[in-house]
Amino acid sequence: MKVSARSEVPAFAVMDILAAAKARKAAGQDVISLCVGEPVSGASEVVRRRAIELLEAGDLGYTEPFGAPVLRNEIARHYERWYGSSVDPARIAVTTGSSGAFMIAFLAAFDPGDVVALARPGYPAYSNILTALDCEVLGIECGPEQDYRIGPGELDAALARRGRLDGLVLASPANPTGTMMTAEELDAVAAWCAAHDVRLISDEIYHGIVYDTARWPGASAIDHVGSGAVVVNSFSKYWAMTGWRLGWMVLPADLLGGAEVLTGNVALCPPSLAQFAAVAAFSDEGYAAAQRDVEQYARTREVLLAALPELGWREVAPPDGAFYVYADIGDFGLPAAEYCARLLAEAGVALAPGTDFDVVAGDRWVRLSLAAGERNIVAAIPRIATWQATLG
Amino acid sequence: MKVSARSEVPAFAVMDILAAAKARKAAGQDVISLCVGEPVSGASEVVRRRAIELLEAGDLGYTEPFGAPVLRNEIARHYERWYGSSVDPARIAVTTGSSGAFMIAFLAAFDPGDVVALARPGYPAYSNILTALDCEVLGIECGPEQDYRIGPGELDAALARRGRLDGLVLASPANPTGTMMTAEELDAVAAWCAAHDVRLISDEIYHGIVYDTARWPGASAIDHVGSGAVVVNSFSKYWAMTGWRLGWMVLPADLLGGAEVLTGNVALCPPSLAQFAAVAAFSDEGYAAAQRDVEQYARTREVLLAALPELGWREVAPPDGAFYVYADIGDFGLPAAEYCARLLAEAGVALAPGTDFDVVAGDRWVRLSLAAGERNIVAAIPRIATWQATLG
Repeated sequence: MKVSARSEVPAFAVMDILAAAKARKAAGQDVISLCVGEPVSGASEVVRRRAIELLEAGDLGYTEPFGAPVLRNEIARHYERWYGSSVDPARIAVTTGSSGAFMIAFLAAFDPGDVVALARPGYPAYSNILTALDCEVLGIECGPEQDYRIGPGELDAALARRGRLDGLVLASPANPTGTMMTAEELDAVAAWCAAHDVRLISDEIYHGIVYDTARWPGASAIDHVGSGAVVVNSFSKYWAMTGWRLGWMVLPADLLGGAEVLTGNVALCPPSLAQFAAVAAFSDEGYAAAQRDVEQYARTREVLLAALPELGWREVAPPDGAFYVYADIGDFGLPAAEYCARLLAEAGVALAPGTDFDVVAGDRWVRLSLAAGERNIVAAIPRIATWQATLG
Repeated sequence: MKVSARSEVPAFAVMDILAAAKARKAAGQDVISLCVGEPVSGASEVVRRRAIELLEAGDLGYTEPFGAPVLRNEIARHYERWYGSSVDPARIAVTTGSSGAFMIAFLAAFDPGDVVALARPGYPAYSNILTALDCEVLGIECGPEQDYRIGPGELDAALARRGRLDGLVLASPANPTGTMMTAEELDAVAAWCAAHDVRLISDEIYHGIVYDTARWPGASAIDHVGSGAVVVNSFSKYWAMTGWRLGWMVLPADLLGGAEVLTGNVALCPPSLAQFAAVAAFSDEGYAAAQRDVEQYARTREVLLAALPELGWREVAPPDGAFYVYADIGDFGLPAAEYCARLLAEAGVALAPGTDFDVVAGDRWVRLSLAAGERNIVAAIPRIATWQATLG
């Protein structure tokens, strides 16, 4: 029977690493897993306590497709608090993770054949969802030679090269590199997009996880929603609520109606308990718990950066934010997938191969997640260095 | 800036009714809401207790894209228990509601331009998701003149009419009609689909909510998964876990790989707490609580059926299962949307207009949900009858 062509999405290479890591564990061998971007802390106590209170009181049922008003109001207050921006809660759509936001935003903004630019390296699901929705993905190189940045010059070049551009998805802090745009850089890109009728989708899920206090919480496109930008965020990273599947987006007026009807059909509503519990994430206690996680990532990052000479990773993307370090391991003479497979098999450390993030140049790169915490990073460094030395 | 053509999905007319009902309530007027398919009971105590225990122990993080193995195993046991069918848990994908299952199944099975047949009247999200994914929807009339049934004859006719058919989505018990197919009827349709390379997607989310014990829990396509069918189910209806956003599907071998990679990109995983709590839905206590709800729907249904002469609804689809009654109100001389708007404004009863389920013939029909419970139905009947009498 017929299987769709659009389901031929490339599998993540990291899945093989995860499976091998699992098999190793099952065989009683130890594994230090630094290959997934999942905060170990989990939801803060104040959020879990709120969820327990709600469950003791009964069950919640469906909410509005765009989420419970109480949570949308809290998210609006969050924009006031972090960015000094005034956002109408009616423009805020609570979503089933940022994944749910991307699906709805892409459906609302793009038709089959539309051309959407993405930074390369970048989060692979952007490309895979767009491809499944029959959009054309245009990769814009964003590696060391571009100083890990996309600006108006790169966008001009991309538009000239392809002759057409309908959308741009950008993340700052970025996954896998952790690099950040300044407010001026983001403003320039947003202005370019508005001037060229290109829909900017700004992925801000790593906001707040930033290591230079002067740049905290990160440059937001929130003030460009008025000129057509979509801002996406999530409770999974800063608030460590991965399994709750809760995110949000802020929508420009022209996408609002379509996005709401699409959400009612595609998702009905985001998970209700997660929504009402997430209100507590915006309490002083909720922010404080998240900030303690960020401090812990910062310590872990310092440990890793201090060990770079020992690791011999010459080129490392500037880890300004998020909890990743993206490093060029090309000097060790192994393609990324083989490097990762052997590092796991021979030294018990799991990293993500760069090929998942960059189909062109990723074979020289690996991504290490700091979210596993200081103790794991401290244990992993000598293992990696010792193993690399065996490669001669 | 460009907005997608595919976001031009028709809004549900019931949304206007819901907004009007809300405004009425806010103005201090009473409303009997019989327009949404949401069980009032909510998740059973055993499920909520399990969730509380889990939250007290910590947070859960992501699961595998297809869900936690413990839940997939329980779902496999459920097929053994209810249908005597042996299902490999590896074929079971836990999803973010049945909505998440439909999105993934449609993406995995169908490409743009593929033709997918749907019963008319039917659940509107099938059509709207397929349209958003650029598939062509072929409505097959399934009203009183067809005895509310689709069989090989209707499929032959549809195939001859359109010249091509790639998929068929069928629900039994059906929404909005509540009608059920016999096992023989479903087997004949599944055999027809297998013989014509047409992907059957069997929506079984109302299984277990069935009023004739001889036909309980409903005819399943589970034994046709081996010949290409997809079976979709949910925790939202029988187990009343609407807001938890949890469902599942059983996949044929050819769709398994594509569906898993798509899920990893589109959703990451279903909500984790819901998954682990839902394990308790399969306990004796979980089944018993669900069964008590079914008994309550059955009593409510009896009350309504006994009142049909008083209501003067001559044609009513056979409410074999689910918790809906779909009735022809054409004799009262008002189009469905106007009937519903005036019934709400003048008598305080909210029903769903048939136009949401059937763009061709729905203007003569309304759907009443029994899920609101006996007390509400008892109160609504004289209001509806009295109001209808004013229409003269």
